[in-house]
Amino acid sequence: MKQIVQEGWKIIRYNKGDKTTEEEIIATEYPLTVYVNDEEFATLVCTPTNIEELVIGFLASEGFIRFYDEVKEITVDKDRGFAYVTLNKELEQDRHASSKRFIGSCCGKSRQFYFQSDVMTAKTVTSKLTIPAENCLALMEALQSKSNAFQKTGGVHNAALCTIDELLTIRTDIGRHNALDKIYGYILKEKIPLSDKVIAFSGRISSEVLLKISKMGIGIIISKSAPTDLALNLAEDLGITAIGFARRNTMNVYTHHERII
Amino acid sequence: MKQIVQEGWKIIRYNKGDKTTEEEIIATEYPLTVYVNDEEFATLVCTPTNIEELVIGFLASEGFIRFYDEVKEITVDKDRGFAYVTLNKELEQDRHASSKRFIGSCCGKSRQFYFQSDVMTAKTVTSKLTIPAENCLALMEALQSKSNAFQKTGGVHNAALCTIDELLTIRTDIGRHNALDKIYGYILKEKIPLSDKVIAFSGRISSEVLLKISKMGIGIIISKSAPTDLALNLAEDLGITAIGFARRNTMNVYTHHERII
Repeated sequence: MKQIVQEGWKIIRYNKGDKTTEEEIIATEYPLTVYVNDEEFATLVCTPTNIEELVIGFLASEGFIRFYDEVKEITVDKDRGFAYVTLNKELEQDRHASSKRFIGSCCGKSRQFYFQSDVMTAKTVTSKLTIPAENCLALMEALQSKSNAFQKTGGVHNAALCTIDELLTIRTDIGRHNALDKIYGYILKEKIPLSDKVIAFSGRISSEVLLKISKMGIGIIISKSAPTDLALNLAEDLGITAIGFARRNTMNVYTHHERII
Repeated sequence: MKQIVQEGWKIIRYNKGDKTTEEEIIATEYPLTVYVNDEEFATLVCTPTNIEELVIGFLASEGFIRFYDEVKEITVDKDRGFAYVTLNKELEQDRHASSKRFIGSCCGKSRQFYFQSDVMTAKTVTSKLTIPAENCLALMEALQSKSNAFQKTGGVHNAALCTIDELLTIRTDIGRHNALDKIYGYILKEKIPLSDKVIAFSGRISSEVLLKISKMGIGIIISKSAPTDLALNLAEDLGITAIGFARRNTMNVYTHHERII
């Protein structure tokens, strides 16, 4: 069974004119095809860990389920890369509608919501949680130190569900979105209360990442990387504290800084 | 008109216990909805530069066109974020088939092709081009130095079309795939001969990136970042030289090192 990395890929390394043959560790990329109610639904490429959580989180992110109880059964064929989901309901007739562009009737106002499904599922986060600035940096530090060297340099992403004091659980994936979907799936499955939770994340804060955080109902995201303008406009509207470039002793608070004390 | 970055976002920066208010530059993220033959086709989020090339490259990457001549007309409404494409042909009836999982009849062999459209459009690259190792490093150095500071740190990606001696043109986008699609669109539009070309790229070499390179018909990709195992298996099969971690004086050649002299 493939996991996060594959060992032993033979490479030729050039270093200041020298040429050596070495063995490298390579991130695993695994195609996973998801069937929903006996219909082929989507193929994701992912890191093949926590597949069930990934599928649940993916369906929730896409707006097809809201609760774990809507999933009647889920079977994963790891060797072949298939997940079969049976829902306790019909899949909407026009499942491609969810990826249709949403055009707000009020020009400008709804500009940020560009998919119809997001209009229905993104929600304003009203959490009153506050967190000391030094805790944000400590959580990012913990995320970094709990990732092994390859995960830090080799291009896999990490997302962690945290309290304001500690990391509770980490998920890893070659895809930023998948790492968050694995956390989302875990949250739904375990019915974790979220008003006191924070996400620490290695990837960029794009609009899609921000919308996932909002759907989860989490008020604070701390990232090592940069945000985009669309994500920040959404964060402003949806009541989410977006923190970027959290590295060593420094971080930037872009939105809703009232939660940082 | 929004371009690559937005200036003047007010942030609070924490640095070793100090708290200052500053203005930051933020990457622009722009939703672009593509209509093909009067039907809503897809919404991309992108950096709003070279939109026409992006749309052409995207349609080619997805297997819907192969040549620029198949595009009868393309109109871009930049302010609202819409691109209207008219093709000289019908869009295939079941356009979602292209994203259907491909199951090879010969177990194992076609494992890497996980989408039906890729089976039809990915091609083995037979280019006999060779390149000195130091030129690969020089091309990556040129890509880095031609990107401004924000582009290096702020999470936008750069892709460049190169000869073995110099960068010909660079495209930038918040999405790795979009940066390559912009290059692909440029290539198709300008009918650039490709057997003597190389791609320099800031992003990871995932299977999707590798497949794009193969569809373009380019034999060498040089990246600053890591590859995935699926991408390397594809590179091996499709005759592409994949170079990763090209940074300063060092680089790793993962596949088809016969092109490196």
